[in-house]
Amino acid sequence: MQVRVKTKHLRARLENLAVILVETIYPENIGAAARACANFGVPNLILVRPRDLHPEKMKAMATRSGLPLLKRMRICDDLITALEDFHYVVGTTARLGRQRKVYETVREIAPRIVDLSQNNRVAILFGNEKWGLTNEDLYHCHTVITIPTTEAASLNVAQAVVIVLYEIFCASAEVEISKPRLATLRELEIMYEIIRETLKSIDYIPHENEILWMTTVRRFLSRLDLTAQEVRVIQGFCRQLLWALQKSSPQTSVQSKN
Amino acid sequence: MQVRVKTKHLRARLENLAVILVETIYPENIGAAARACANFGVPNLILVRPRDLHPEKMKAMATRSGLPLLKRMRICDDLITALEDFHYVVGTTARLGRQRKVYETVREIAPRIVDLSQNNRVAILFGNEKWGLTNEDLYHCHTVITIPTTEAASLNVAQAVVIVLYEIFCASAEVEISKPRLATLRELEIMYEIIRETLKSIDYIPHENEILWMTTVRRFLSRLDLTAQEVRVIQGFCRQLLWALQKSSPQTSVQSKN
Repeated sequence: MQVRVKTKHLRARLENLAVILVETIYPENIGAAARACANFGVPNLILVRPRDLHPEKMKAMATRSGLPLLKRMRICDDLITALEDFHYVVGTTARLGRQRKVYETVREIAPRIVDLSQNNRVAILFGNEKWGLTNEDLYHCHTVITIPTTEAASLNVAQAVVIVLYEIFCASAEVEISKPRLATLRELEIMYEIIRETLKSIDYIPHENEILWMTTVRRFLSRLDLTAQEVRVIQGFCRQLLWALQKSSPQTSVQSKN
Repeated sequence: MQVRVKTKHLRARLENLAVILVETIYPENIGAAARACANFGVPNLILVRPRDLHPEKMKAMATRSGLPLLKRMRICDDLITALEDFHYVVGTTARLGRQRKVYETVREIAPRIVDLSQNNRVAILFGNEKWGLTNEDLYHCHTVITIPTTEAASLNVAQAVVIVLYEIFCASAEVEISKPRLATLRELEIMYEIIRETLKSIDYIPHENEILWMTTVRRFLSRLDLTAQEVRVIQGFCRQLLWALQKSSPQTSVQSKN
């Protein structure tokens, strides 16, 4: 049932990933981005020309998990300096004009970012709250991706960071949650037998048509994908019911009634 | 290149979906949840016992797109009243103790929510910032899902709303972005011919090994998945280069040199 994934079990080398926020206006969004990085194990946050670094506002949104990110984040005066040591740069945009040449969604590119992160440092760029990344910023990107939304949408920059990192995380981890094991046929048959016995004891099964009736019951219960534990609960209930019936009518024993 | 999806083109009947926030503490998160609903086309927001409904704080985070959601959101005193008219209830949790019986991630359940929304009203529950949904809240859920994160993670409630609605949206829409069409072989061969001519004109291809040399060039350029437009750019560059070479050495014509 483990879904909290240890970062060492991820395919991506998260230490090779960085979130770069360009000209972010609100310090709350820097804090929220730091928290998103922490949630999905990305250790590097870089700010390019942030407009406001109000510490309390950043910290409030970063919460405890995001504080280490805020402490070690880099702040750069220009994007080119920030990008120098990276091997691959991914821009994000909500605007899809022809000039932007956006051909991939975040879900499509996520597996490639995971692969590239094995041997390369990958930067993911997010523009500011008002106009996003400029064409000049996008000039430095190897590729530009987008997040599908409804027509009228405007994702907040921190929400965009959450979705992009979540997609990379999902592409990187075996996140399928372990499913409960179903009851075996042996366990099921014991349960069906006691159900049959119980239903007969209260005269709820027509004598002439027992198999058809029990088929309905079996199909109904099969749809539930019962686990061994749930089978035991139903069995216990039937057993208790039989006992209660016998106790309440000691003169005519339930067994002998049928 | 259309990724902004018109809601009428979605498989889910979004009007049948609702986000229910239980005992939310910070009005900013109510606002951010409203914005997330707007971004992914979910028109119904219900609050159960909100702790603080500070209008300005809610509106600031909802931004313009989330305001209609805030205007028509329902506020209930208890969860049972809020759920009365729904057919299916999905709880969300980050805690995965055995008692919680969490067997599905949000990505796994998203297609089922889309299917159910065709004929049923589906509520998705989110707990508050401190302790999430209580066991008593989860008692009313048909199923409980989780969002995969790193071990140490704590998703903000509004971030959780963003990810859940994004997954439902992706499961509902044909969000694959249209890819550029590649150049045809006819277009490519014209380009390769002028490249060959250009390289020969500057004596860059060894005469004895022309095919091997051009194979290297073709493999290199093939890796780029060139579009017709890009092919024309390369062709134009070569043609211009040939012209410049001829102009700079009018005595020895480039053609005659080879």
